[in-house]
Amino acid sequence: MSFTIEKKLQGTLGRAGRLTTEHGVIQTPAFATVGTKATVKALTPVQIAEAGAEVVLANTYHLYLEPGEGLIEEGGGLGRFMGWKGPTMTDSGGFQVFSLGSAFGNKINKFSGHRVSNILEEQRTPLVTIDEDGVTFKSYKDGSEHRFTPERSIEIQHAIGADIIFAFDECTSPDAPKEYQREAMERTHRWASRCLGRHRELQVQSLKLKVGEKKHQQLFGIVQGGRHEDLRKESAKAIGKMEFDGFGIGGSFDKEDMGNAVRWVNELLPEEKPRHLLGIGDPVDLFDAVENGCDLFDCVAPTRQARTGSLYTQHGRFNIENAQYRNDFSPIEEGCGCYTCLHFTKAYLAHLFRSGEILANTLASIHNVYFIVQLVKKMRQWILEGTFLEHKKQFLASYKK
Amino acid sequence: MSFTIEKKLQGTLGRAGRLTTEHGVIQTPAFATVGTKATVKALTPVQIAEAGAEVVLANTYHLYLEPGEGLIEEGGGLGRFMGWKGPTMTDSGGFQVFSLGSAFGNKINKFSGHRVSNILEEQRTPLVTIDEDGVTFKSYKDGSEHRFTPERSIEIQHAIGADIIFAFDECTSPDAPKEYQREAMERTHRWASRCLGRHRELQVQSLKLKVGEKKHQQLFGIVQGGRHEDLRKESAKAIGKMEFDGFGIGGSFDKEDMGNAVRWVNELLPEEKPRHLLGIGDPVDLFDAVENGCDLFDCVAPTRQARTGSLYTQHGRFNIENAQYRNDFSPIEEGCGCYTCLHFTKAYLAHLFRSGEILANTLASIHNVYFIVQLVKKMRQWILEGTFLEHKKQFLASYKK
Repeated sequence: MSFTIEKKLQGTLGRAGRLTTEHGVIQTPAFATVGTKATVKALTPVQIAEAGAEVVLANTYHLYLEPGEGLIEEGGGLGRFMGWKGPTMTDSGGFQVFSLGSAFGNKINKFSGHRVSNILEEQRTPLVTIDEDGVTFKSYKDGSEHRFTPERSIEIQHAIGADIIFAFDECTSPDAPKEYQREAMERTHRWASRCLGRHRELQVQSLKLKVGEKKHQQLFGIVQGGRHEDLRKESAKAIGKMEFDGFGIGGSFDKEDMGNAVRWVNELLPEEKPRHLLGIGDPVDLFDAVENGCDLFDCVAPTRQARTGSLYTQHGRFNIENAQYRNDFSPIEEGCGCYTCLHFTKAYLAHLFRSGEILANTLASIHNVYFIVQLVKKMRQWILEGTFLEHKKQFLASYKK
Repeated sequence: MSFTIEKKLQGTLGRAGRLTTEHGVIQTPAFATVGTKATVKALTPVQIAEAGAEVVLANTYHLYLEPGEGLIEEGGGLGRFMGWKGPTMTDSGGFQVFSLGSAFGNKINKFSGHRVSNILEEQRTPLVTIDEDGVTFKSYKDGSEHRFTPERSIEIQHAIGADIIFAFDECTSPDAPKEYQREAMERTHRWASRCLGRHRELQVQSLKLKVGEKKHQQLFGIVQGGRHEDLRKESAKAIGKMEFDGFGIGGSFDKEDMGNAVRWVNELLPEEKPRHLLGIGDPVDLFDAVENGCDLFDCVAPTRQARTGSLYTQHGRFNIENAQYRNDFSPIEEGCGCYTCLHFTKAYLAHLFRSGEILANTLASIHNVYFIVQLVKKMRQWILEGTFLEHKKQFLASYKK
């Protein structure tokens, strides 16, 4: 088994564990830093590691379009290509394919997860056609037509070569009618089975061809079902029965429902396998999800917000471009151990942001990644110590959303 | 004396030395990395230091406008404000004031130094009025009116607090008529004297007020005179006689004239004081200038060119966005010891540039700064070994401008 549970948090679904990959061990719960296009925006791999990040998650959809999975394979796979020695993941591309498309329709602004801005940014050619076999979509870059099937997504992810890959799912809007949620969920289950089949075929082939890292790629199935308890449970049972190495929990629910949806699912998923909550990174949500049995997370929010000057502290986020920080010679947060807080003042960061300097993105991203990664590391520690719930209470008392 | 000459290169004006500042020793010849707005664009201070840079030069004009010299003083001075522990310099702001203005007139494109692009970028409100007392100009940011006098420039530079500061000079276009070059040069000499006077006053005041780093600020006078031998020599004699701690050589000459102009000047300047050739960073020019007795250099080119994907090698520059590098899995330059070359391929850099990723700027800047800084360090070593001229020949034989 590549995943072992070290400690459970009494009276909850929370647990601390260790997930072994070909490129190192991930101590869970852990936050995967997002490196969409094989780069965590504005950070070098050294800076990613110094922030304490253990794993980087890249995006299959984006890498398929640019530079192409073949080039990354030729370059030795994702980690080697981007100079990151630790564990890597790729999502399946499903979310991006659908977030561009008709599945979200004109209700796109009502989607209330963290990925709203992701959608808006890429909302250029909302043309996606779904059929039983797969999805035809237009590139957000040049409008050219492409097709993903479950098999194709797995093939691309094998070429990219991340340690953990995800099944190709249909991601729906939380505002889609329940009948459509069911239809999409059932299709996701059939696609999951096809992903697993293609994954096994490729594993067998690569084992024959060369004994390399590919045989060690772990495939996670994705649970869907929107905000509906019955669908979420049905999906958890269906996906949970399949021979995945772990599970993803798709983010298509309203934020208020998240804690519940995660609990419904994790009560049913096989306990001995890791669970990745996709696209969630808000500190309060992370506490809820860890308590309810999630082991892994990813979210673009820490780096994206950093680039807009929005910085995390124990008391909530603030924007460094506000006038009051121009002559504030204290660090972003007293006591923070990140490179940025140890060496720079808010006044300096405010200057960099106001001057439009590139370094603003780097220093702000270092802080935000450090904040979130370390927060999840602390949650792990608090599970090991049995003090998670007290610390959660303390955190929520001072943190303003 | 803060400057000592360790070794002279026989038959030339070249020398290797050590310049001691309040924040460390600069081993000369040395290339000062430009950090215009108190940041070397896209690099953290750790990355600047890892590239081997010993000194950072910031811009008085830009820092005066944003965030203001008072804020930097409040933040502990330039080095502390930007988190750079090594030596710092500020230029006087003269070049920027004039490059915005009428002194360059409509011949601005013919200015053939490295700073052409600098000018073009800032060429927004070409309104500068020069009188004997000083210069009135409009901000490139918001069109607001400002005035610099020699005294004011020195006051601002004292507030910013760099280790080495420069006298306020009038920088002319190389295409200006000779009569104007003379007029500007003579004004520059009178201003130099006023700068020195104000510098001494402030030093005395600060010595009385607090025994701090300010008393150790070194003021360099600037030699002007365009492309004309008689003016250059006249300027070197006039400025050389004044009690400056070192000298700047202003860049207002055609590139072809540079080697000559530098020799004319350095033959006359007091040998025991350091000489900074302003705004020159082309590898071939650096060889010429070192051979002709310059100790210090600064130029925006390495970082600016990096951000356009133009990368230095022993064989000249190339642009990483050219199609041939898309699947080139070798480093920018084999044998280069920079962080970028040790960890990343051209294919990865090409991907970052094509994707418009911020990290492209960082990795390219690391390489270019490393290349130029290390090249000048090698020149120093070759002077110490007495092999400079052979190495210069070898370098020029393979380097294509």
